[in-house]
Amino acid sequence: MVEAGFRNLVVCHLNHGLRGRASSEDARFVKRLAAHLGLECEIGRVEVKRLIAQRGESMETAARFARHTFFAECATQFKCNRIVLAHHADDQAETVLWNLLRGSNGLKGMRAEQRMTTETGRILVLHRPLLGVRRAELVGWLESHKKLWREDASNALPVAVRNRLRNEAIPLLAEISNRDPVAALVRAAEAFTELQQLEAWALERANVLDPQGRLHLPTLRDLPLVMRRAAIVRYLKEAGVGEIDHDLVARALDLCDSGNSPAVNLPGGGSLRRRGGRLFLQHESN
Amino acid sequence: MVEAGFRNLVVCHLNHGLRGRASSEDARFVKRLAAHLGLECEIGRVEVKRLIAQRGESMETAARFARHTFFAECATQFKCNRIVLAHHADDQAETVLWNLLRGSNGLKGMRAEQRMTTETGRILVLHRPLLGVRRAELVGWLESHKKLWREDASNALPVAVRNRLRNEAIPLLAEISNRDPVAALVRAAEAFTELQQLEAWALERANVLDPQGRLHLPTLRDLPLVMRRAAIVRYLKEAGVGEIDHDLVARALDLCDSGNSPAVNLPGGGSLRRRGGRLFLQHESN
Repeated sequence: MVEAGFRNLVVCHLNHGLRGRASSEDARFVKRLAAHLGLECEIGRVEVKRLIAQRGESMETAARFARHTFFAECATQFKCNRIVLAHHADDQAETVLWNLLRGSNGLKGMRAEQRMTTETGRILVLHRPLLGVRRAELVGWLESHKKLWREDASNALPVAVRNRLRNEAIPLLAEISNRDPVAALVRAAEAFTELQQLEAWALERANVLDPQGRLHLPTLRDLPLVMRRAAIVRYLKEAGVGEIDHDLVARALDLCDSGNSPAVNLPGGGSLRRRGGRLFLQHESN
Repeated sequence: MVEAGFRNLVVCHLNHGLRGRASSEDARFVKRLAAHLGLECEIGRVEVKRLIAQRGESMETAARFARHTFFAECATQFKCNRIVLAHHADDQAETVLWNLLRGSNGLKGMRAEQRMTTETGRILVLHRPLLGVRRAELVGWLESHKKLWREDASNALPVAVRNRLRNEAIPLLAEISNRDPVAALVRAAEAFTELQQLEAWALERANVLDPQGRLHLPTLRDLPLVMRRAAIVRYLKEAGVGEIDHDLVARALDLCDSGNSPAVNLPGGGSLRRRGGRLFLQHESN
């Protein structure tokens, strides 16, 4: 970034304290590099193990929470709102495959640009400019420019899962298909993101909400099933309903037919209710 | 199907002649079963190896061509237009993974209902009612009802690829993720199909074609990038352009800007041209 002309940069590094001496050496390396480049440097430290005990979360969730808190603090301290992350195409392929296997997110990958709201309401933008670049290209560039580097072990995927996807699954899929699964997965994730953007546009255009933000039944009934389903899923998501499974969506779709029962109970309380040509969320207290 | 009340059924079996004695035994099994159930039975035979030599295609493409030709003949002979196929969820998962690895079709799988036009213009509908049912469930049902069966080795995937996906890749992914990849892949393919249907609806609604079927530039320019791209890709596909790669789409998108060159050459001849506020295909002869 410095060679590309960026000047006003702050190097931020969070020591997760998970790998003992290797973690401290990572931090020292970052500090020396920043000094060498004449850049500000902020090193944070967190005991992820203590955080896991406190918050009762998985290692990955606790570590991500710690990183995001640290980024937010740095952003406030240095009055920045853009954070540049180093995830590359191989990281992306592993994330996409992992999401596919978990079965809930389609081909969702990391985004090249992602908004994040901190707990104090500040908006940060995460950038991942290397998401389309292969790990081997990065290493090649570093080697040909005689630059040192260290591997960052922090990642949204559980370490054991990532290692097995990288060292076993992706090589096996490459051998079977005689093609590069990383390129295929990265491209498929891009296509999936585009289809999701298209869905957002279509829902906007379908104009299914009334001025009070409730689902307008006559409009909904005129839409094909696939659009009706997408509109209901989005309405439930935006209303903060947590678990939207296949069965809930099917029962919510049945609400469109005035011959059926006028309400569907939602997980976590409240109901989706049909009244006066509208579908809307009703909280338990009402 | 007979137990579910279907009566007017014709059992069709094409002997691909690829596995010698096993192929003939398959055909005999089908014939006996149909006779036992009191159903019409049509056994066809094709030398797929000869077909490969004639048509210069892969085994899978030649075999599929032979099957579809046979189905079309049976449909004409028996005056049917519905064909029921036995693909199950495990077949579907392997197909989805294979398409993902090949990198061009996203998460495309086989469809539960698919229209097919024969060479004589007849429309047939292929049905795959077992696409959501696991192979193990089918075998369990057959065993508990003391029914005999044979494995059908014909499939759209190359045999070696399918065997390795089934016996190596899917078990490894199950072990790494501690989840069932078949269920995840089948569900992801369904979600992908829905997003594609939604894309078709959105393009219809965007109304980008003029009465002559050309892309209407002012309308196109008002759309967000993702819709503009989808509209151009669909226009090129429906115009029969074969290879629509990333670079071609990028150059076609540039046509929207009247400051750029007014035409883009297409693979296979002809060009996409901007004139009079429209984008349209121009054949070479013009």
